[in-house]
Amino acid sequence: MEPVLFYGVPQGCSFGSIVALEWLGLPYRLCRITHDTPKDLFAQFNPVRQTPVLLLENGTALTESAAILQHLANRVPERRLGFAQGTPEHDRLNETLAYLNTTFFSAFAPLWASYDMEKNPPVQEMLRAMGREKVAKAHKELEAMMARREWLVGNTRTIADAYFIGIARWATFHGVAEPRAYPRIHAHIQRLEADPAVIFAHAIEEERPATSSGGFKGHVALEDLRSRLAA
Amino acid sequence: MEPVLFYGVPQGCSFGSIVALEWLGLPYRLCRITHDTPKDLFAQFNPVRQTPVLLLENGTALTESAAILQHLANRVPERRLGFAQGTPEHDRLNETLAYLNTTFFSAFAPLWASYDMEKNPPVQEMLRAMGREKVAKAHKELEAMMARREWLVGNTRTIADAYFIGIARWATFHGVAEPRAYPRIHAHIQRLEADPAVIFAHAIEEERPATSSGGFKGHVALEDLRSRLAA
Ligand SMILES: N[C@@H](CCC(=O)N[C@@H](CS)C(=O)NCC(=O)O)C(=O)O
Ligand SMILES: N[C@@H](CCC(=O)N[C@@H](CS)C(=O)NCC(=O)O)C(=O)O
Repeated sequence: MEPVLFYGVPQGCSFGSIVALEWLGLPYRLCRITHDTPKDLFAQFNPVRQTPVLLLENGTALTESAAILQHLANRVPERRLGFAQGTPEHDRLNETLAYLNTTFFSAFAPLWASYDMEKNPPVQEMLRAMGREKVAKAHKELEAMMARREWLVGNTRTIADAYFIGIARWATFHGVAEPRAYPRIHAHIQRLEADPAVIFAHAIEEERPATSSGGFKGHVALEDLRSRLAA
Repeated sequence: MEPVLFYGVPQGCSFGSIVALEWLGLPYRLCRITHDTPKDLFAQFNPVRQTPVLLLENGTALTESAAILQHLANRVPERRLGFAQGTPEHDRLNETLAYLNTTFFSAFAPLWASYDMEKNPPVQEMLRAMGREKVAKAHKELEAMMARREWLVGNTRTIADAYFIGIARWATFHGVAEPRAYPRIHAHIQRLEADPAVIFAHAIEEERPATSSGGFKGHVALEDLRSRLAA
């Protein structure tokens, strides 16, 4: 069977891996992970119980967005979603992806903590204030990095842009970081939102009819994948 | 001039990049960044104002631990501190490094927030409780991952082990995550602490006489590096 990407809803950071799969063009399947997914079953694929996970043809499960995205880019180097080891472009891609995966991503952690917790106004307000400040700082930094760049790395789209669009949307979701204050980030989001792969990924998340411009071969249920997992 | 690594004190995550440089064996220099370092000057090298930063021979500055460590490993592939693109080992290295760089690293964020803030017992207690819980969860996960591994990835030391030793020590620093509860993590820390590169990195951080078993060529001041920075 084709590789299977496990993605989470709502607002999963796995969104970026769906976009990268679409851009890559190879056949793949999706497996939807929700709050109703049995935790013990999912833990057999990823003990950390997080999405994304990419189940490979040989039955091994690859976790972590950064590892999955690099793996996908390496499958078809001619697509230029990544770069060859040892080149300055590869360094720049690793740097940008790591920045997004660490500082930019984790700026939202206090906002998610507040969102996920039981009603507790004083603590939630403190967490939201903390998150708002961190997200603003990360946006300011990213806005500056984008000064001389049309795409996040190099002259064409890469896995960094795919990852970006899956997490940059969180600012709007949490009502922080006014888009107009960050015109380059805002324009980049707008541009990516018009991309067929991004439109497809939204439709998948929201369970609307989705048109693949890549190699999407349909969904598969988690139970049906257990037998594929390598020992 | 040789590449220069900017490292931060105290307890910097740049520690791992010093260890990797020692293991690599190539000539390099160090530049010490402290709370007294002029922020505007440092921002010329890294607008995010964080360490580590690796200033390359051509005057460009590379940031982000994950990018710096991969860059170092790629300089001398025969040292096998990293793996070739497209191999399963490369995937596993990317996965482990990303896990350490995201979930494991950021589990400590509430503890650092509490440590860095002005005295405010109720908020600090809440942050410490949050950090304690996240660090315990991350330790439990990492302990499970290490079940069938002698080193973090593959049969020999890699940049993942170098990065690990720079951040795993934070549990003791903050007095969380009882070592005996995580015997594999504990044993791995003990083993790495006995490594000459790790002993060297501690001595550098603490400004004690340091014996390099690699290519350390001395410190250089930040002011003296400005002219080397590419436009
Ligand atoms: N470092 C991981 C983080 C993955 C992550 O945080 N996934 C979230 C969704 S954005 C998740 O699965 N959350 C569910 C949970 O933690 O239970 C990566 O970059 O892939
Ligand atoms: N994502 C970055 C994080 C670097 C980082 O957080 N560095 C800290 C030291 S561990 C730092 O420079 N802190 C000083 C500051 O933020 O002002 C990496 O992995 O290199």
